[in-house]
Amino acid sequence: MDFFDKHKATLDRAVAALHSRVFFANFPEHPAPAVYGETADADGQQKFKDMLGKKFESLQQPNPSGWVGQEESPYLQQPLGISYPTFTVPALIDEAQKAFHAWRKASIETRTGILLESLERVKTRFFEIAYATMHTTGQGYMMAFQASGPHAADRALEAIAAGYEELDRFPSSVLWDKPMGKFNVQLNKEWRAVPKGVSVVIGCSTFPTWNSVTGIYGSLVTGNAVIVKPHPGAILPIAIVVAEIQRVLQEQGYAPATCQLAVDTVDATITKELAEHPAVKLIDFTGNGIFGSYLESLPGKTVFTEKTGVNSVILDSVEDADKVAANLAFSLCLYSGQMCTAPQNFYIPAAGIKTPAGTLSVEDFGKKLAEQINGLVDNPKAGPFVLGAIQNKKTCERVADAAKIPGQVLLASRVFENPQFKQARVATPVLIAVDAAQKDIFGKELFGPIALLIKTKDTDASIALAQEMALHHGAISCGAYTTDPAVKEKIADAMSLAATPVSFNLTGGIYMNQHAAFSDFHVTGGNPAGNASFTNSEYVTRRFTWVGHREPVSK
Amino acid sequence: MDFFDKHKATLDRAVAALHSRVFFANFPEHPAPAVYGETADADGQQKFKDMLGKKFESLQQPNPSGWVGQEESPYLQQPLGISYPTFTVPALIDEAQKAFHAWRKASIETRTGILLESLERVKTRFFEIAYATMHTTGQGYMMAFQASGPHAADRALEAIAAGYEELDRFPSSVLWDKPMGKFNVQLNKEWRAVPKGVSVVIGCSTFPTWNSVTGIYGSLVTGNAVIVKPHPGAILPIAIVVAEIQRVLQEQGYAPATCQLAVDTVDATITKELAEHPAVKLIDFTGNGIFGSYLESLPGKTVFTEKTGVNSVILDSVEDADKVAANLAFSLCLYSGQMCTAPQNFYIPAAGIKTPAGTLSVEDFGKKLAEQINGLVDNPKAGPFVLGAIQNKKTCERVADAAKIPGQVLLASRVFENPQFKQARVATPVLIAVDAAQKDIFGKELFGPIALLIKTKDTDASIALAQEMALHHGAISCGAYTTDPAVKEKIADAMSLAATPVSFNLTGGIYMNQHAAFSDFHVTGGNPAGNASFTNSEYVTRRFTWVGHREPVSK
Repeated sequence: MDFFDKHKATLDRAVAALHSRVFFANFPEHPAPAVYGETADADGQQKFKDMLGKKFESLQQPNPSGWVGQEESPYLQQPLGISYPTFTVPALIDEAQKAFHAWRKASIETRTGILLESLERVKTRFFEIAYATMHTTGQGYMMAFQASGPHAADRALEAIAAGYEELDRFPSSVLWDKPMGKFNVQLNKEWRAVPKGVSVVIGCSTFPTWNSVTGIYGSLVTGNAVIVKPHPGAILPIAIVVAEIQRVLQEQGYAPATCQLAVDTVDATITKELAEHPAVKLIDFTGNGIFGSYLESLPGKTVFTEKTGVNSVILDSVEDADKVAANLAFSLCLYSGQMCTAPQNFYIPAAGIKTPAGTLSVEDFGKKLAEQINGLVDNPKAGPFVLGAIQNKKTCERVADAAKIPGQVLLASRVFENPQFKQARVATPVLIAVDAAQKDIFGKELFGPIALLIKTKDTDASIALAQEMALHHGAISCGAYTTDPAVKEKIADAMSLAATPVSFNLTGGIYMNQHAAFSDFHVTGGNPAGNASFTNSEYVTRRFTWVGHREPVSK
Repeated sequence: MDFFDKHKATLDRAVAALHSRVFFANFPEHPAPAVYGETADADGQQKFKDMLGKKFESLQQPNPSGWVGQEESPYLQQPLGISYPTFTVPALIDEAQKAFHAWRKASIETRTGILLESLERVKTRFFEIAYATMHTTGQGYMMAFQASGPHAADRALEAIAAGYEELDRFPSSVLWDKPMGKFNVQLNKEWRAVPKGVSVVIGCSTFPTWNSVTGIYGSLVTGNAVIVKPHPGAILPIAIVVAEIQRVLQEQGYAPATCQLAVDTVDATITKELAEHPAVKLIDFTGNGIFGSYLESLPGKTVFTEKTGVNSVILDSVEDADKVAANLAFSLCLYSGQMCTAPQNFYIPAAGIKTPAGTLSVEDFGKKLAEQINGLVDNPKAGPFVLGAIQNKKTCERVADAAKIPGQVLLASRVFENPQFKQARVATPVLIAVDAAQKDIFGKELFGPIALLIKTKDTDASIALAQEMALHHGAISCGAYTTDPAVKEKIADAMSLAATPVSFNLTGGIYMNQHAAFSDFHVTGGNPAGNASFTNSEYVTRRFTWVGHREPVSK
């Protein structure tokens, strides 16, 4: 049985789920011994430890120009000591171009089978990837496992499924038979889905696999050669993925260079040189808005971006203010606000949030939110693991600066002790009350655990501000709390026009930060937070071109 | 019966044809009395004549700032004298924004029904549109009828069908039910297809309806408000279409301003002001490469372009050189080479084209081509009607300049007498033999009846040049003649990589210039000739954004 047949049932379920958008997951998200094996966790941790301080030799990319590595663990605040092979941009492009032609000529089924098999191989390394993710991004263990392992693999499967479906959209050949009155014109026509060429996927430091695998698999399934350029601070998780893809390619007789890893350093980055190379036709990017907009402006490239945004929470009326505060406190604490879907701006009417027990002012609600945050942080069995560590020192500086914002500090950021990692770089959320007039403060992304409670004239003003932020600065998520159906529709409509998905009235174990594969589009592509969406049809169709040839039927 | 029900069967056939890509046409292309009515032609001509020298009063756009009109008939070389209402850009945007909200909230079925009905109304005006097209573009009667009438209406139907299908791609609501072990997380989710806003469709002077209706109908079906900015030299054909759309909108209770006509003059063009307006989110453009690239570079806009290209014919080996020359002669003469799909560069190996009777050199084949062109031009029942007239004086200047190209003039351009219009601005094709080294000559679009026969080293060199031209300068069509299956595949593959469709071995009554709706993608979007394709899924999906909202199921 070949790989396509082996995985066909999974593929069919994935394609169906893409349309139905009901719950579907192919990779179990719980790191349970019953699912992954009794020793899977310990084995993965040991394998991770065995990689520390060594050369990463698993890639099939010969003749490196050097070896580099700058990763540091936010938990240990010391280097991982792993080094990766480096290559010049011309060498990377040359290898990609050589690998491209065999790969583009492989059948859709062959490519799809190889890629699905690679995900199964990656699955056997979820625990290694989890520890690699923890010690590069600072994510807590559970998030590191889920986001970099099963959730990323499901997003990759989603991209494969979307690509597979779109590649099959038009017939490979057809007889076109046009009645002309006295005779018919008959043409044999054929259509080819032609990949664009070399694809560069630029990773970020906080979600090194989750944000990259969609572009990698989306480009590969449609027949492009891929160069993966990870963030210098978070290489190992995606290096393991690339190594597994290369292994299956090699086994099946395709060049490992069909998917290359291109490592660089912060002080000698190759990203611009790669992106601007004329042979590079596709670019996927996750990261800051300025660089993303620069990439989008490059002529002759098809560019997919996820940039920055300002995520809002509109608070109008609630059934249970404590449950709401608990839910939002968790959203703020989860990975210390370092998620692109984390809330930042909380809009509260001057007259207060309506509750069954009366109204809650900004200060009242801030107090509840602060209590919930403190409760979570100070719970030693939960807090440190939910908060994780801070990936980048600059985020700590931003949190420190936030204390100087002209407003009322409702909760100061502080440190806490991680029971496993005493040296961890940590920061809890800072809560600051400001006024709706202070757009210079809240009208930009403040990446990290920083929350602003903004007093507005009324809920209409809150909606207008949330919409304005999304339209002008981008937004990837939005939370809203209202018990009034008319207000709910007003919010739903206003945020739709700003291309921002709204999570209404979340309480309990589901958070506005979470976007589920096969159901929630991640980023809509319709506001400045990014021009691409995981995974709509454009996300894959823009990676290839339909070209039709025709010839008269021989008489 | 509402309009959606009335036209549902047609819509279903159109959606099916988009996938099957077999021959399908909803609007009969032959201007036959049996189809369109015994007096349809005479009536249409009379109605056209009745519009000359008057204000065009059919638009439902009150309070114009003025009346202008600069159209001139290339057949009569005198002004049509028709004037159209003008509006300031802020006024146009304001009206579009006011109309937008009701239109975006109309159901998919309502929008689709109104648009399909408008095409039926346009059908009753095909003959008026034909005469309007003749006397603005210079097209011959048959092309003017077909291209601006039934072929354009079929392309519009194609865009409606594609939009209708994509708007229905994801469910409007669904229960998302995720097992979490001890409990399930249940969310009600909904998805909205949110139109981007104001859409501007910029027309060209040669195909005023065919090249504009796809953008107009593609934007309208997906819920956007449209502003149609015709070329100042070819307004009337599309003005009639807009008037019919407005009439149906009005009848159904929607603002006519949902689809406005924005007329300007060459010396006071409003195109840039319109395109750069922040409210304009979508731009469709047909025209020159420099302006198209400028539009593509505008940040924050979704831009669909058809620009210029250099179309090649690769001549390797033929069964019947005379039939080939006849076919290509017709392609060159059709509308005097003023089609974006017309051939320009003919690559012939130094050793000659292989034929059953020996090889044909550049000069030999040039002679055959010249004979066929002369035979067609000098056939008074065919030539003048196939060639039509020259839309723009500058094209005549370009043809005159071509005679100075350093090469061998194999056939000089000349004038001929149109039996109906003695004053017609005409020019027959000029044929010039050049060498493959003269890329400065043939490496650019020479719009109009100008053909270059280029002597190459061999067919591999011909293929390389055709590919290079397409990759660097764009190409919308390609012709190729070979009796060798291996050479055929080499051409098919090389031109695929340059995103250019190839017509192989055409002889008889089918030409490389022709792209049929529902089967041939017009422009692939994959080379510099344009970034959009009539009509792939992106052509409509990029006109709206999928936004999903969610809320926990009430317990």
